[in-house]
Amino acid sequence: MFDLYIANKNYSSWSLRPWVLMKALEVPFNEHLVPFEGGFGASHEAFKRFSPSGLVPCLVDGDIAVWDSLAIVEYVAEQHPNVWPNDKAARAWARSATAEMHSGFGALRDECSMNCAVRVELNSLSAKLKADLARLDTLWQQGLEGFGGPFLAGEHFSAVDAFYAPVAFRVQTFKLPVSEAAQAYVERLIALDAMQAWYQSALEEPWREPMHEAETLKNGVLKIDYRKS
Amino acid sequence: MFDLYIANKNYSSWSLRPWVLMKALEVPFNEHLVPFEGGFGASHEAFKRFSPSGLVPCLVDGDIAVWDSLAIVEYVAEQHPNVWPNDKAARAWARSATAEMHSGFGALRDECSMNCAVRVELNSLSAKLKADLARLDTLWQQGLEGFGGPFLAGEHFSAVDAFYAPVAFRVQTFKLPVSEAAQAYVERLIALDAMQAWYQSALEEPWREPMHEAETLKNGVLKIDYRKS
Ligand SMILES: N[C@@H](CCC(=O)N[C@@H](CS)C(=O)NCC(=O)O)C(=O)O
Ligand SMILES: N[C@@H](CCC(=O)N[C@@H](CS)C(=O)NCC(=O)O)C(=O)O
Repeated sequence: MFDLYIANKNYSSWSLRPWVLMKALEVPFNEHLVPFEGGFGASHEAFKRFSPSGLVPCLVDGDIAVWDSLAIVEYVAEQHPNVWPNDKAARAWARSATAEMHSGFGALRDECSMNCAVRVELNSLSAKLKADLARLDTLWQQGLEGFGGPFLAGEHFSAVDAFYAPVAFRVQTFKLPVSEAAQAYVERLIALDAMQAWYQSALEEPWREPMHEAETLKNGVLKIDYRKS
Repeated sequence: MFDLYIANKNYSSWSLRPWVLMKALEVPFNEHLVPFEGGFGASHEAFKRFSPSGLVPCLVDGDIAVWDSLAIVEYVAEQHPNVWPNDKAARAWARSATAEMHSGFGALRDECSMNCAVRVELNSLSAKLKADLARLDTLWQQGLEGFGGPFLAGEHFSAVDAFYAPVAFRVQTFKLPVSEAAQAYVERLIALDAMQAWYQSALEEPWREPMHEAETLKNGVLKIDYRKS
C-alpha cells in the first residue's frame, strides 16, 4: 500500500493534488499528515525524515520515495487506470496543462495562497494576477469545450483536474473574477466527494500557522473564517 | 514527423530540454527556431501562432500541440524507448528529480539565466542561490551514486539529464561552485554530441536580445564572449 505524506489540508496546495486524485480514483493509500512547524521552509528538516527534498507531498512505496506531486501522478499512472485520459489528444492536452500549472501561474500562487477555510476580499488585483486569470479562463475553456466536459479533459476527473483543484479553492477564498464557465467548473470541482472530504478536514484542523495566515491576508481583508476550533 | 518550435539556442533553457533529449535518443524532428523579438514576454503573440500558451518549446504532431517541456518528454516517452530509465526505482527517482526542476530551483534560474556563449564573474552568491546549489549537489550525488552513473539515473542519458542540461551551461557560464562530482557531471553533459551541436549553434547566432543580455549581467561582470558575429 502507498504511504502519502502531506501537510495541513488548510494550506498545502501541492499536497492536495495527489491526495484528491487518489481519492477520486479510489487508489488506496495511508495518509500521514505532518503539520507545518513554523513558517515557509521551517518544516524542511522535519519533512526530510520521509521526503528527500524536504518538501511535501511525498509518496512512499516500499523502498521508493516519489517526492514531487507531478512525479507522484506519473508513478500512480503506471499502476492504475484513468489517471490520464485514454484518448491520445486529450492526454497530450492534459499533460501540457498540468505541466504548465507545475511551472507557471506564479502570481496566482504567490498572491492568492491556499487557505481553504477563509474568505478574503482582495484590495486589488495586480496586472500579473489578471494575466494569470485570463490564461486560466482561456485554458479551461479550451479543455471544457474541446473535450466535451464536464471535466477539463473530458468525461472523467483526471490528473489535470487534480492539478487545478487548489485553484478552485483559491477562487472560492478570494472570490476571484473568472468567466461563468470557469466559475461553474470551480463549483463542480468543489462539490466532488473527495474535495468535500479534504475541505471538511481543513475546517477541523486546530493549527494556525502565523506565516501562512499572514500570507493569505497580505493583500486583502478577512471576511469569514469557517474553522471550527 | 514531429515539429519542435524553439527560441534562441543561446538563451532558451526550456527549449534545450526536449531538443537535447530527442537528439540524444535519435528521435527525428523538424526544428523551427523562432528568435525572441524583444524582451521577456514580448514574443508571446508571435509564439501563439504555434503554441497555445504563447511559450516555447512546443511540439506539434499533426493536430496535436504539446506546449510544455515536461509534457513533451512524456509525449515522446509514449512512442519512443529510453526517455525514462527502464528500472522502476530509477524511473521514479528520475521523474521526481525532473519535476522538482520543473517547479523549483528558482534562484538558480533567476540569478543565473542561461546565456551559453558568455563567461561571467558573479559579484556574489545570494543565500537562496547557495541553497539551490547545495540541493543540486545532494540530488546529483544521490542519483550518480545510487544508480551507478555516469548519468543521473544510470548508464544512459535520459529525460532527467535533459532537464538538468541547462544547469550545466549555467555552471559553465557563471563558474558556479559545485562539488567535484557535480563538476565532472557538468563536463560530461557538455561533452555530449547533442550538447556540442546546440552550443555551436548558439555561438553562431547573430541575435543579441538586450533584456536577456542585461539579465545575464545583473549580478556579475562579463569576462568572455565566444560569439562569432
Ligand atoms: N514541486 C513540489 C513542491 C512541493 C512544495 O513546495 N511543498 C511545500 C508545501 S505545499 C513544502 O513542503 N514546504 C516545506 C516548508 O514550507 O517547510 C511538488 O510538486 O510536490
Ligand atoms: N513551462 C514551460 C515554460 C516555457 C517558457 O517559459 N518559455 C519561455 C522561453 S525559454 C518563453 O517562451 N517566453 C516567451 C517570451 O519571453 O516572450 C515549459 O517547460 O516549456
